[in-house]
Amino acid sequence: MNNRKKYQVKFLPSNKTRTFKHGFNLRQAILDSGLEIESSCGGVGTCGKCIVQIKEGSPETKKTKFISESEKKEGFVLSCLTKITDDLVVFIPEQKKTRAIIDKGKLAESSNVYADINRKEYEKVEIKPWIEKVNLKVEEPSLSYGTSDLYRFKKAVKDKFNIEDCIIPINVIRDLPKKLRGKGWEVAVTIDLNKSLIINIEAGKKNDELYGLALDIGTTTIVMYLVDLNDGKIIGSDSDYNPQIKFGEDIINRIVYSNKEGGLKKLKEVVVDCINNLIWRLLLNSHIDPDNIISMVVSGNSTMMHLFYEVSPKYIREEPYITVANRFSDCRATELGIKHIENAFVFSVQGVASYLGGDITAGILATGMSNSKDLALFIDLGTNGELVVGNSEWMMGCSCSAGPAFEGGGVKCGTRATDGAIQKVWVDQETYKAEVEAIGGGKPKGICGSGLIDVIGEMYMKGVIDRKGKFNKNIGNQYLRCIKDDCLYILVEGKDTADGKDIFISEVDIDNLMRAKAAIYAGIKTLLEEVGLSVYDLDKVYLAGGLGKKLNVGNAVVIGMLPDINIEKYSFLGNTSITGSYLSLLSSKKYEETVKIADAITYVELSVNMKFMDRYVAGLFFPYTDLQDFPTVEELIFSLDNKNRGKEEK
Amino acid sequence: MNNRKKYQVKFLPSNKTRTFKHGFNLRQAILDSGLEIESSCGGVGTCGKCIVQIKEGSPETKKTKFISESEKKEGFVLSCLTKITDDLVVFIPEQKKTRAIIDKGKLAESSNVYADINRKEYEKVEIKPWIEKVNLKVEEPSLSYGTSDLYRFKKAVKDKFNIEDCIIPINVIRDLPKKLRGKGWEVAVTIDLNKSLIINIEAGKKNDELYGLALDIGTTTIVMYLVDLNDGKIIGSDSDYNPQIKFGEDIINRIVYSNKEGGLKKLKEVVVDCINNLIWRLLLNSHIDPDNIISMVVSGNSTMMHLFYEVSPKYIREEPYITVANRFSDCRATELGIKHIENAFVFSVQGVASYLGGDITAGILATGMSNSKDLALFIDLGTNGELVVGNSEWMMGCSCSAGPAFEGGGVKCGTRATDGAIQKVWVDQETYKAEVEAIGGGKPKGICGSGLIDVIGEMYMKGVIDRKGKFNKNIGNQYLRCIKDDCLYILVEGKDTADGKDIFISEVDIDNLMRAKAAIYAGIKTLLEEVGLSVYDLDKVYLAGGLGKKLNVGNAVVIGMLPDINIEKYSFLGNTSITGSYLSLLSSKKYEETVKIADAITYVELSVNMKFMDRYVAGLFFPYTDLQDFPTVEELIFSLDNKNRGKEEK
Repeated sequence: MNNRKKYQVKFLPSNKTRTFKHGFNLRQAILDSGLEIESSCGGVGTCGKCIVQIKEGSPETKKTKFISESEKKEGFVLSCLTKITDDLVVFIPEQKKTRAIIDKGKLAESSNVYADINRKEYEKVEIKPWIEKVNLKVEEPSLSYGTSDLYRFKKAVKDKFNIEDCIIPINVIRDLPKKLRGKGWEVAVTIDLNKSLIINIEAGKKNDELYGLALDIGTTTIVMYLVDLNDGKIIGSDSDYNPQIKFGEDIINRIVYSNKEGGLKKLKEVVVDCINNLIWRLLLNSHIDPDNIISMVVSGNSTMMHLFYEVSPKYIREEPYITVANRFSDCRATELGIKHIENAFVFSVQGVASYLGGDITAGILATGMSNSKDLALFIDLGTNGELVVGNSEWMMGCSCSAGPAFEGGGVKCGTRATDGAIQKVWVDQETYKAEVEAIGGGKPKGICGSGLIDVIGEMYMKGVIDRKGKFNKNIGNQYLRCIKDDCLYILVEGKDTADGKDIFISEVDIDNLMRAKAAIYAGIKTLLEEVGLSVYDLDKVYLAGGLGKKLNVGNAVVIGMLPDINIEKYSFLGNTSITGSYLSLLSSKKYEETVKIADAITYVELSVNMKFMDRYVAGLFFPYTDLQDFPTVEELIFSLDNKNRGKEEK
Repeated sequence: MNNRKKYQVKFLPSNKTRTFKHGFNLRQAILDSGLEIESSCGGVGTCGKCIVQIKEGSPETKKTKFISESEKKEGFVLSCLTKITDDLVVFIPEQKKTRAIIDKGKLAESSNVYADINRKEYEKVEIKPWIEKVNLKVEEPSLSYGTSDLYRFKKAVKDKFNIEDCIIPINVIRDLPKKLRGKGWEVAVTIDLNKSLIINIEAGKKNDELYGLALDIGTTTIVMYLVDLNDGKIIGSDSDYNPQIKFGEDIINRIVYSNKEGGLKKLKEVVVDCINNLIWRLLLNSHIDPDNIISMVVSGNSTMMHLFYEVSPKYIREEPYITVANRFSDCRATELGIKHIENAFVFSVQGVASYLGGDITAGILATGMSNSKDLALFIDLGTNGELVVGNSEWMMGCSCSAGPAFEGGGVKCGTRATDGAIQKVWVDQETYKAEVEAIGGGKPKGICGSGLIDVIGEMYMKGVIDRKGKFNKNIGNQYLRCIKDDCLYILVEGKDTADGKDIFISEVDIDNLMRAKAAIYAGIKTLLEEVGLSVYDLDKVYLAGGLGKKLNVGNAVVIGMLPDINIEKYSFLGNTSITGSYLSLLSSKKYEETVKIADAITYVELSVNMKFMDRYVAGLFFPYTDLQDFPTVEELIFSLDNKNRGKEEK
């Protein structure tokens, strides 16, 4: 075998052709060619999503349960388990998840929703950003007053603000003489009074235009608001998928990728590229002068923040699970490779710990719970479920790994909360036929987080599955298809779906959701017990996250994910990270509040907490091992017709 | 005429070939091709130095007095007056000035000379640079102490220095986790205590290595010292011509060039390239780790400082002659495009005014005159003569344009103070034959500033020229060659020179020196009179500048450049700018002293001073109109044999 040999690989349908050395990993080859390939496991063969079809050539590949014998004959392989050992023609199926385009109209609408929900908080905010813009008159030089431009400028700053020796970066000094002389020694100065730092100087009187950007870097989605800092109005919002997804769908896989050579740089580059695009699009649509954008506040979980600032997140994943920093140094946007907004400074929202980041601090700010005496519970539902309980007196938080089920991951027909995603489900008590509602109203493509919670809740209530999440084969129905012990519940038949394939739920999918919901509930119970409280002590429960806008809290209680308390106490707030980021942008006081919130939260590490583990195991039932925790659910179930329900232990 | 036409121009001897559009200036074409061409006038046709020979083709060129009819027939043209209107082959003669290589041995020797002269000052300096390197022990994290790396690091800094919230740039944060874990949570931290700024973090205990660079950016020469900050030892020194020379030999021409499109950027780039080369050479020879170079102090005249920091020097040249800044913001070397020394911060020595820069402040520091009660006069001789008079109580300074004569410019056989430059001259009273001494001892190539002062002094004393600087044709000698009224005094005949051509002095050369020395003396007189003092009140006179190491102070008095006072009061210190820069590098106290010196100096603008103008005109005689100012010279002249001296007015 000649190991020095190189092979040509042609990718379909793009027709891209590249050369790779003998034994190069096929999935990596696809990524390196700038193409997209799903893989929520990061390329270790456990998610089965990176399937491709070999049209020509014979590569070396490993056996996998994800490829049936008949599929194998047709050339299907998992690209992550395949080595290039021949010239190949490879067909890459359409990659639904990463290709999906977020509906811009919907997003704008949803940002209004958040603004509405938080109006009370928002209206309390006195708009006073970090950075001010003021008019300044500088003395003119003469032969008898021949001091430098800088001296006279500093003197004017001193006379106005009583700042002895303001800091003026060299690039601002470079423009100083032109700006001073541009409009008769009158300038508009953008100044960070907190740091005595001169950010920008314009000739003439100020035009009062001052803008900022709020940014939320989520593991899945990046959201940006363009904000008028004079009145707080959101004059534009846009979002995009986090392009880091192609290097690993979840945080752990991205940390792994960042440890590879050049990985950290690559992850930083793609996220900054994406941010640059968002800025560019917002600028195009708003017609504002980018020089008037003077600040950006960014929030995100700790790993996303590390990657954005190009700081290795390696130690987040290794015991004792340490961040390098919970808040990064204020710096110029240009220092981070951000384009278009040369005058802007970037501030990051402070996080608490490795798995309780600035997105959560921003979320707490958005709820206002740190200013209220009411006992509140904040739950951010995602791949990691983050929980904070407390009020204006104290706060305590934790994080529990829920797996990717809430974001459509680890579920065979799962998808993100985008157009075509099933977000609501009803199961008929008599026929067991499911009725679904997809986002956008068209033919469904898959099931998103909220749809999954709904369908499992319905299936459990209507008796399609039992308390252990196992199918009740007694219902003997066309929608439940079994081969031996392996069953699928058909939600939508192929003829009614977008891609002609059945959308179904398998027992593996149910198991995944079971583990996710068990982790959340165990987290809630453990956290409350740490402070001697029970779920009944809660005055408010704030739900946040991107799992779909129509979360059915009732069904989330039915499956045992959320406590069985008065449903009126629940509010669903959507993306609270961007809201908190937005509030911090408007007001330096609010920004300072995030620092106080982060400092106030005591972090509880659950990964080593035995009580959490016990409760987690107890949660691997619907709704819970001990039904006394869910009296309303118990009542509901028994009030329904149980004719098809199998024999269950109590 | 097809103006869109392009022509090919081949340059000899380099054989470089480039294409230029119709009518492109030939001198600019040479520069744009990366080749060198002398022109002290900056390309306006008045210095006659950019002569080239057209070997093939017929370009459009203007008449000039610098090209004789016979030279014209041989194809000689001034490149600055020539347009490319044909395909050309152009021979560029060897460019002596810019090609000359500074003798490294000599430079090292000369730097010792300065160090010796200033030993008294140097020994007083307590070595305590801006920046310190300290050992720090940072607490190890654990599951029960899960704070961020940054938090624990800041805590250690706080415990050691009582600094509440030190500033850590993002690039230092990026390395933090690796460095903390490298040697068991023990690190060596380079810290600027003045700014509470962390500059560098190394794993393990500090190795005590700490270096700095002192830099003097002169209009003509750039000098750099590599200094051990533990003991103050100069472990390497190097220098080079300022490559900006090819864009204009003096400050005014460079300011003009900086106003052209891209000119400022170009001037900055070439000087930074030169500095990078010096650093690289010093690193190569010293074998030290560049990461241990942590600071650089730079001095230079105001225009050089503006160009180095890429700030337009435009307003220095326009009334009321204003700098943008007299001191530029401290910044990282990398921000200025400086390579190799990524940890270093750059500090600039504060100047006083447009024509009294940081080089003079550094010079005053080097003399120590600001710490002495003695009344001292500091004279920096160059294209601009800068003068400062005063003591520890007060100081007053001015600048007078002397023209390029002291640096060998504006003199037909002039050259800089490098190998082959005539630096000393004796004229025989009987034969009028000159004997010369060239730097390096070989065949002479031209006359440098100190040689010019010497020869004119000798010529005047021995009666070759009269008080007005006109040749005394009565001497009727083989060394004085006249055609009608146009005479040349042959200093060295072609057979004894390096290039086979006569080295001579013309009346134009004498006129140039006359104007230069008149400006200096008028400046001294005016400055002293501003404070009601006379030259006899001076306790010390410090001479600085690069006009040759063997300045004959006696002959400088004879020609009326320097006051006729006790010669023991004079000290010649060479390049005091680099010495001051070096002292500031060693000690933050000395650096602060430069700020105090700059603030203390009252600047007198001579360009609008009528008394200065009167005295300047009075100085257009040897030694001066009023001989009472020069009693010793008067006595000397009359004691010499006056047989060949023509009728002179008194």
